[in-house]
Amino acid sequence: MSEPAYVAVDWGTSSFRLWLIDRAGRVLAERRSDEGMLAAAKIGFAGVLQSHLAAIEAPDHLPVLVCGMAGAKTGWVEAGYVDTPAPLAAILKQAVRVPGGARDIRILPGIAQRDVKAPDVMRGEETQLLGALGLAAAGEALVCMPGTHSKWVRVKDGTVAHFSTFMTGELFSVVSRETILSLAVAGADDAEDVASFKAAVKAAFEAPAFAANLLFGARSRQLLFGGTPAAARETLSGTLIGVELAAGLSGAVPKAGVTLIASGRLAMLYRLAFDALPVIVTPIDADEAVRRGLSMAAAAIWTS
Amino acid sequence: MSEPAYVAVDWGTSSFRLWLIDRAGRVLAERRSDEGMLAAAKIGFAGVLQSHLAAIEAPDHLPVLVCGMAGAKTGWVEAGYVDTPAPLAAILKQAVRVPGGARDIRILPGIAQRDVKAPDVMRGEETQLLGALGLAAAGEALVCMPGTHSKWVRVKDGTVAHFSTFMTGELFSVVSRETILSLAVAGADDAEDVASFKAAVKAAFEAPAFAANLLFGARSRQLLFGGTPAAARETLSGTLIGVELAAGLSGAVPKAGVTLIASGRLAMLYRLAFDALPVIVTPIDADEAVRRGLSMAAAAIWTS
Repeated sequence: MSEPAYVAVDWGTSSFRLWLIDRAGRVLAERRSDEGMLAAAKIGFAGVLQSHLAAIEAPDHLPVLVCGMAGAKTGWVEAGYVDTPAPLAAILKQAVRVPGGARDIRILPGIAQRDVKAPDVMRGEETQLLGALGLAAAGEALVCMPGTHSKWVRVKDGTVAHFSTFMTGELFSVVSRETILSLAVAGADDAEDVASFKAAVKAAFEAPAFAANLLFGARSRQLLFGGTPAAARETLSGTLIGVELAAGLSGAVPKAGVTLIASGRLAMLYRLAFDALPVIVTPIDADEAVRRGLSMAAAAIWTS
Repeated sequence: MSEPAYVAVDWGTSSFRLWLIDRAGRVLAERRSDEGMLAAAKIGFAGVLQSHLAAIEAPDHLPVLVCGMAGAKTGWVEAGYVDTPAPLAAILKQAVRVPGGARDIRILPGIAQRDVKAPDVMRGEETQLLGALGLAAAGEALVCMPGTHSKWVRVKDGTVAHFSTFMTGELFSVVSRETILSLAVAGADDAEDVASFKAAVKAAFEAPAFAANLLFGARSRQLLFGGTPAAARETLSGTLIGVELAAGLSGAVPKAGVTLIASGRLAMLYRLAFDALPVIVTPIDADEAVRRGLSMAAAAIWTS
């Protein structure tokens, strides 16, 4: 096994992921848990990190680079923001060191859009952007990063010009679990219903103001015409994603189409959604992107 | 005190209201409780009704007329639907009698829109429409009925032509209590922030596709620029209402403007919202409307 060079951590709101990386950027070991910022704020960030470092037998001198919500005000050590227009290169230069302790642990900053009309913040996605687009990317990109809080980002010549957060994932979660629509989706198995999903994406994309009506329609349709819980669930999911796409695609779309940074099930769902419109996307794996971004930052911090 | 003629009940999803009415339509006694359909389905509809009848010492022979969710499939006795296009006069003719028992208890039907593209149902609002517009209303009305599940209804010459349900109230409830935005509104007192509310209504009305972004903005604005929890709460409320208005007003608006059937705080909020656009409204009290509708139906059923 090659020599470990550093540890990379993507510390989100509700998830923790850690990779042991060698000098060539290869993954030597990996850890995943649900000790995200919310959980770690209660049990202690240092302890959570140390337990995972111990589990992979990371040497004491090995530095650790963290991105994500661990750098929030309500996180471990506040890592501030780079303000828009934000050169991705600036991310590398503003990492904040966790005070105390022998180990060199640094947290990357987020990006803030200090626009009273469109205030917004990101933490973690900037590192994905860095990994996905690189520092020297020329031209314009429109990037869709789906999730609990989806981000749509306009990047021009390596600088984040503007971005918008949509609560799509979180809305799906509360709407399907905590409202009257939970009755319509109760007992839904994992069966996919691509037709219902695509129809909902198109309907919401064409009439986004009707989102709260289209959601309720999932239940009315079941009452009046029948239909499976899975169809209702796909309708909720497609409606919320369709509205997000209507907003995200409301400005100019670059000739190259949309850059979709996502992994797993979300990547599959959003590709189906873009396909329903249809809009051309260039998919990039989000896990790979964040690892690559952390590697680029680690190289800049510890080899310069 | 004049002689009671019948008992009128508005039995909603989460609320129960009962009035003792004389032959002239005057209210002799009133009861309100939170034993709505959801609660009554567990403890028993007959028992809930009987306890309120006993509390007002209603004579055994007095008939009872019910509207609302007590007539749903998951309610007391299913009262079916009148299908659109639905003459309001048909509501009076399709009341269903609760079987068994000496007392004459009847439940009014709802209205169903059996349109695969826009399936929808209402129960209770049809009785408000009856009371607010009457049977012989000529011309067109566009009616907004705010609530947990707001209804927008087009009525033409006394017939419900089309309607749409928006989950505005329920979305406000789960978004402000169950999502990350609960942090932004935590500790909000009852102080009003009319400026934040109206600004949010206008922003969402103009860009409804951005609703899930405008909601998240309530938190980002607080992080980056400060602001009270009350301002954040009014932003959530104004955003959700603004999107509803964008959809509700997307078709032709009659010369007379919008008929707003609402009571209390909701009536105030929606009047502010329409005023922000601005759109002319004719306000009608919802409590009065449902009582009047039940009275009209009772007169038709028991004096014909």
